[in-house]
Amino acid sequence: MVSNHFADRLLEQIAAKKSPAVVAIDPVYSLMPADITQHRDLNDENDLAAALDATLEFCRRVIHLVAPYVPAVKINSAFFERYYWDGIEGYYGLVQEAADRGLIVIGDVKRSDLGPTAEAYAAAQLAEPTFDEVDDLVSPDAITISGWHGLDGIRPFLAVAREEGKGVFVLVRSDNESADVLQDYAGSDGLRFCEHLARQVAAWASDEGLIGQRGYSCVGAVVSARDREQALRLRALLPQSILLVPGHGPEGVPAESCAACFKSDGSGALICASGSVIYAYDNPKYLEMYTSEWEKCIEHACKDFAAEAARLAVTD
Amino acid sequence: MVSNHFADRLLEQIAAKKSPAVVAIDPVYSLMPADITQHRDLNDENDLAAALDATLEFCRRVIHLVAPYVPAVKINSAFFERYYWDGIEGYYGLVQEAADRGLIVIGDVKRSDLGPTAEAYAAAQLAEPTFDEVDDLVSPDAITISGWHGLDGIRPFLAVAREEGKGVFVLVRSDNESADVLQDYAGSDGLRFCEHLARQVAAWASDEGLIGQRGYSCVGAVVSARDREQALRLRALLPQSILLVPGHGPEGVPAESCAACFKSDGSGALICASGSVIYAYDNPKYLEMYTSEWEKCIEHACKDFAAEAARLAVTD
Repeated sequence: MVSNHFADRLLEQIAAKKSPAVVAIDPVYSLMPADITQHRDLNDENDLAAALDATLEFCRRVIHLVAPYVPAVKINSAFFERYYWDGIEGYYGLVQEAADRGLIVIGDVKRSDLGPTAEAYAAAQLAEPTFDEVDDLVSPDAITISGWHGLDGIRPFLAVAREEGKGVFVLVRSDNESADVLQDYAGSDGLRFCEHLARQVAAWASDEGLIGQRGYSCVGAVVSARDREQALRLRALLPQSILLVPGHGPEGVPAESCAACFKSDGSGALICASGSVIYAYDNPKYLEMYTSEWEKCIEHACKDFAAEAARLAVTD
Repeated sequence: MVSNHFADRLLEQIAAKKSPAVVAIDPVYSLMPADITQHRDLNDENDLAAALDATLEFCRRVIHLVAPYVPAVKINSAFFERYYWDGIEGYYGLVQEAADRGLIVIGDVKRSDLGPTAEAYAAAQLAEPTFDEVDDLVSPDAITISGWHGLDGIRPFLAVAREEGKGVFVLVRSDNESADVLQDYAGSDGLRFCEHLARQVAAWASDEGLIGQRGYSCVGAVVSARDREQALRLRALLPQSILLVPGHGPEGVPAESCAACFKSDGSGALICASGSVIYAYDNPKYLEMYTSEWEKCIEHACKDFAAEAARLAVTD
């Protein structure tokens, strides 16, 4: 029996792939392989159709390469919005492509608003389509959202999550230093702002009908592990949430910090890597092995990353 | 000589229309006039092409009706994302339509992210297009953005604003009660979180190259006036920012509170109304005057609103 609760489905996929690794698909045109960006004469960054074709081709190949090794991919809508409406059509195409390969798909859209506007975002970004013309369109299994507007702002997303077995990851702590001034703002209660926010998310996550069979809510949180002590506190404040942990990689958050986002049983976190996998052909380690065979570099880096994420889940 | 600084252009338009009123275009399908939603046989809410056509037709008519009376419109992308890629094409079409009528256009998109992702959002949502195929596409004059990621997150938007004479409005205080728990979080320094955020925005707003001839920055802020005392504090904390003040209307924020967002010279705020103008045909006051002539209701309500906003600017 296939569970229709997001967290249950995600945990099943993590078990099947034996790793809590997520590959983030953030295709920066200038970093894509020359083999792709120069695959036809007309192709250049200022030619929308060609640049979008190249971007989608790269993303499709990445999805095919990583699908055997990871339970989920995260697709960032910004890189498709960049190509206006054609880009949006391409984004939904990639969601479908990833879903067809059995991957859990997280749409990294960071949306938030109030009332009917939040309902419109939830319908657009998370719900299955209600229109006949696009009834074969596949929406992401989960999306990232902002908690800025409080419960009013996230209620429409929770309604879709509850009714359609979808999930959300609320932004709680990003991994850039310049966010400290806001996200670490010291409260009069002794908490930091992100910890206070985590408490709210924990309350939202425990609402009726949101907890799956494995005890996790379909309301997760995006939590950076850059500050290991803080990651441990956020982990404790969000007992029923799966944490989506960005920034894993050689120049990113240290592995031992990412490990802090798991519970002692090794569950409860998704470790996310972007450039270290999708641009692995720029890494001398893989380049030496495969020279110009960029797909082999990505596949090998993805295997290494999935193994590393699995190790982190059991070593904290 | 037309100034190419966003705040200067906006202030010129406010002077030309003699009002700091902004009409928010948030088209909820079920609230649109029957005359529009039933204008052809096939039209229903579950037929994407027909629902989108009806939505765009309604928005175009609203833009034409309000253009003589207000300096700016705010178009919320959620209601167009709702119709997937066709909706996005429609959104940009409306931006063009409003710009063609001489209106300042604010894209209410609330985007935020980091690094290359924020750059992609800035390119997609704010910058003029760099692609030959869409070189006649018109982007909004300004957009709403989240400050969540700190300076890293807004820098790419500031770069576009500086280089192309565009603007941003950073979300500082929304007008819903459930946001209080986060936005009014009490800091150990005696401020509320939104006030602390306002201080950061004020610092970003004063950066080199961002201040126009009239002393205002192209970095504005979205500030609710629901709490009048807080609005006065935020006004003081953001001396160089134009405040975009949501929620004006009979069931919204009281007029005297909105007045708190202006400086003593009557400058520095844009008062925003949505339903009270665009659905004025549901208001008995206008319905009695014009019965089923919904366009006359909207036009009259817009005139009333523009006059009210002008009055607020000089009475605090």
